[in-house]
Amino acid sequence: MMKYPLTLHSIFERAEKFFPKKEIVSRGSHGIFRYTYAQYCRRTRQLGSVLAALGIKRGHRVGTFAWNNHRHLEAYFAIPCYGAVLHTINIRLSTDHIAYIINHAEDDLLLIDEDLVPIIEKVQDQLHTVKAYIIMSDNKDIPRTSLSPAYSYEDLLSEGNPGFQFPDDIGEDEPMGMCYTSATTGNPKGVVYTHRSTYLHTMALGLADSIGVSETDVCMPVVPMFHVNAWGFPFAGVWFGSKQVLPGRAPTPAILADLIEQERVTLTAGVPTVWLGLAKVLREGNHDVSCLRTVICGGSAAPQGLIREYESTFGIPFIHAYGMTESSPIITVSRLKSYQVTLSEEERMDIRAKQGLLIPGVEGRVVRYDGKEAAWDGLDAGELWLRGPWIADEYYKDERTEETFIDGWYHSGDVAVIDEEGTIKLVDRTKDLVKSGGEWISSLDLENALMTHPAVFEASVVGVPHPKWDERPIAFIVVKDEHKGKVTKEEFFTYLEDRFVKWWVPDDILFIDEIPKTSVGKFLKQSLRNQYHGYFISKA
Amino acid sequence: MMKYPLTLHSIFERAEKFFPKKEIVSRGSHGIFRYTYAQYCRRTRQLGSVLAALGIKRGHRVGTFAWNNHRHLEAYFAIPCYGAVLHTINIRLSTDHIAYIINHAEDDLLLIDEDLVPIIEKVQDQLHTVKAYIIMSDNKDIPRTSLSPAYSYEDLLSEGNPGFQFPDDIGEDEPMGMCYTSATTGNPKGVVYTHRSTYLHTMALGLADSIGVSETDVCMPVVPMFHVNAWGFPFAGVWFGSKQVLPGRAPTPAILADLIEQERVTLTAGVPTVWLGLAKVLREGNHDVSCLRTVICGGSAAPQGLIREYESTFGIPFIHAYGMTESSPIITVSRLKSYQVTLSEEERMDIRAKQGLLIPGVEGRVVRYDGKEAAWDGLDAGELWLRGPWIADEYYKDERTEETFIDGWYHSGDVAVIDEEGTIKLVDRTKDLVKSGGEWISSLDLENALMTHPAVFEASVVGVPHPKWDERPIAFIVVKDEHKGKVTKEEFFTYLEDRFVKWWVPDDILFIDEIPKTSVGKFLKQSLRNQYHGYFISKA
Repeated sequence: MMKYPLTLHSIFERAEKFFPKKEIVSRGSHGIFRYTYAQYCRRTRQLGSVLAALGIKRGHRVGTFAWNNHRHLEAYFAIPCYGAVLHTINIRLSTDHIAYIINHAEDDLLLIDEDLVPIIEKVQDQLHTVKAYIIMSDNKDIPRTSLSPAYSYEDLLSEGNPGFQFPDDIGEDEPMGMCYTSATTGNPKGVVYTHRSTYLHTMALGLADSIGVSETDVCMPVVPMFHVNAWGFPFAGVWFGSKQVLPGRAPTPAILADLIEQERVTLTAGVPTVWLGLAKVLREGNHDVSCLRTVICGGSAAPQGLIREYESTFGIPFIHAYGMTESSPIITVSRLKSYQVTLSEEERMDIRAKQGLLIPGVEGRVVRYDGKEAAWDGLDAGELWLRGPWIADEYYKDERTEETFIDGWYHSGDVAVIDEEGTIKLVDRTKDLVKSGGEWISSLDLENALMTHPAVFEASVVGVPHPKWDERPIAFIVVKDEHKGKVTKEEFFTYLEDRFVKWWVPDDILFIDEIPKTSVGKFLKQSLRNQYHGYFISKA
Repeated sequence: MMKYPLTLHSIFERAEKFFPKKEIVSRGSHGIFRYTYAQYCRRTRQLGSVLAALGIKRGHRVGTFAWNNHRHLEAYFAIPCYGAVLHTINIRLSTDHIAYIINHAEDDLLLIDEDLVPIIEKVQDQLHTVKAYIIMSDNKDIPRTSLSPAYSYEDLLSEGNPGFQFPDDIGEDEPMGMCYTSATTGNPKGVVYTHRSTYLHTMALGLADSIGVSETDVCMPVVPMFHVNAWGFPFAGVWFGSKQVLPGRAPTPAILADLIEQERVTLTAGVPTVWLGLAKVLREGNHDVSCLRTVICGGSAAPQGLIREYESTFGIPFIHAYGMTESSPIITVSRLKSYQVTLSEEERMDIRAKQGLLIPGVEGRVVRYDGKEAAWDGLDAGELWLRGPWIADEYYKDERTEETFIDGWYHSGDVAVIDEEGTIKLVDRTKDLVKSGGEWISSLDLENALMTHPAVFEASVVGVPHPKWDERPIAFIVVKDEHKGKVTKEEFFTYLEDRFVKWWVPDDILFIDEIPKTSVGKFLKQSLRNQYHGYFISKA
């Protein structure tokens, strides 16, 4: 059989040859912009020639800092087909993290949406490797900026060569892209995708039993292109020749509803918050969204009520998918098996609210704290381990690799149960579990219970090293101002003892003024863990 | 990204883990046999242990000589997962060719369906490498045979280990299977498939825009498992967990109709002859085949009338696909693009009667006789060249490799036109074209015209080397007995001049007693070409 490399070139060229008439629709600052794949492909080749003119070499990193729009889609193919590495930068990271990942990736060039320029201006003095900035604007002139040298994307493209030939000798194991995880502790960790991994992940999105992306689809990724490649939808859309609708800068639910109706979107993907927002708009009944064949929901689990509302009220199939930066990202899709369709509505919903079956190509294990595989009973919890052709085997130049990628398996840090059908359901994060005497205690369950107490403003539970039990939980409580000095430890112990088995109840409860938090408001448990690391050991 | 090999192991293990309850239905000599994937997987592992016990080593060839049944499906995975090479032998070849390919592949072991044993007995004295024969029978005892040593498949399996572990170090580029083309001239040519090529071809069968094989499907491959892996359906069925229906020995159209109705088949695949036969049965109106979502038709082009009958009369979508042994086999599937569905019925049928678009992963060119790419106008004919991850790059130990695999392209020998949408339509075989003065003349068109003449019993046109024009056509006509001596060359020249441009008309017309034919009744044009090789040159 031919040694035919699995690269993005064959994906791009298929659209160029077979789907020149199909459309790409992009919401910009002056409204809807639309063009054909023929025009898209010419501009993508022009961008390739611009990279050459700017001296970008094979393997160089080129960062993008942009919304879901047509220029970003041009960069999605021009950069990897040229042989450089598409580094999509998450615009929602803290400026410190943004500077960190640009420096860590050693980006040579940044492509920046006009309205996001001020963020990069803030960090420009910290950037050590960027040699040029390209500003992507819907206007004729780019704004004044302190970034230097700064070029206009459109000006550069107008000089570019629409017949530019991408190199034909790129190997499938060469890097094509990279993405950093958003970290709650420490710096973000980088994941490098290869041509092969993206090719195979994209193919998997076309499988009837995963998403089934098709030429007949009108695909609208709401999940950002700066976040794990918009789950791979832009690549799939190009390969299979789908019409693509890119909703641009911070689309509101009303804008999404309008786009779905006007462009006859059949397939869209995003996080539960997006679908909660859209549901509000759809409830008003002013939009005909009968065109939608599937809403894909990932990122975190959607409440069953939301799934029900989409399906029963709006008549739109609503499907869970699951994955992470390290897995390209999609690894499960929650569909019923053929013999499950005759179950009761309740049973079917219970299955569909899980994360689903591993899609073809991905292998997984649920491994208990004691190292044994969890029973397939839907109860026995363990960490989800993954391997497969689109699963990472390292963090980019990062010593945290060795904690996470062990003996050929990626240890996801997600705690899951798996039922007798093989359906995976997430229950927790390993770092939020307390490892006590060979068993796991869910800190989230304890926190959720404490937060229902009327005197509690916020509460956090962490595992602290313990000489006998490995770890034991300690609860940290911030009492509401009006209750301060009026509640006691004992009251909370009793409260928890009523609700949990004895060995789950924390060994101590401490009142503090504030739970330390990350820049985006998540509990920074690591800080508490560090501070109380010697709590039991020094006592012992 | 992980260096995760694309091998059949992950396909097999997915069925084992996620679809143990799904069914495999196999038509045997005592009626329908059915079991679950759980049982199938245990028996497949048992067969693996039998291969080990018989001393089969990694890379050894194991031949199968069998119908579409459950034992053959066990061999489909046990042999490659064990690391040996599944050599499916076409039972319809001449005994000379059967002996040739077993010797050429150097098969160590043959697995033979009971009723096919007599064919192998006929050639056993010519076989140089086969060390043992395994007879697959639905009966307790295998028949007496002169093959030696001959074992009973069921006896061996009953001693086998259902927990046998297949080796986990097989590389994706290792061979997993092989298949020989049926040759009209010379010996059959062998094509070796790798784990990687079969993995990727199987994944492509799951794409919504190709066949979309799904867990919800009940797949019945009518195309034989001894012929290009039944177009890959058995592999896809296992990976995606489809219920499989294997129709056994020489199924009649009535048997197929019964199986479709009783097993609720959703997807079936075969050649036009099969669908012509089935149509006859369905016309009687005694079968409910509403379960069928798609009939896949390949091998040769189906007449439009047949497509229409399936769709209009029976309400069954009827889809053309196309491929060959060298391409694993599927390379095109004929589906309408989204904007073609609004065309008139006539226009849609014209598109769907073509071979279709190249499926994702396969690259093609239509190259004219003068070496230029043919215009995408649906008229300009050229040879179809292919490349991609499931396209062969050689014939196994065969010097004919160099005529066919040139500069990274497989020259298919099929003559095609490609329209402005990229849809491929086959028009001829290159070897049946006459290359005259830089242009191609279709011998088939000339033959078809001659055969409409009332005095013609049969006619063949071949290209013969010519000193000035490269080649010129000569027509050979067998006149019907009652017309013998009553028709002249001149009459036929006039007949053709009325129907073709001048330079298409053959330079000579010769009356012969019989057109030489192959064992299966196809015109053996090579014989005429050889005989008349010097016709113009010696004259000149």
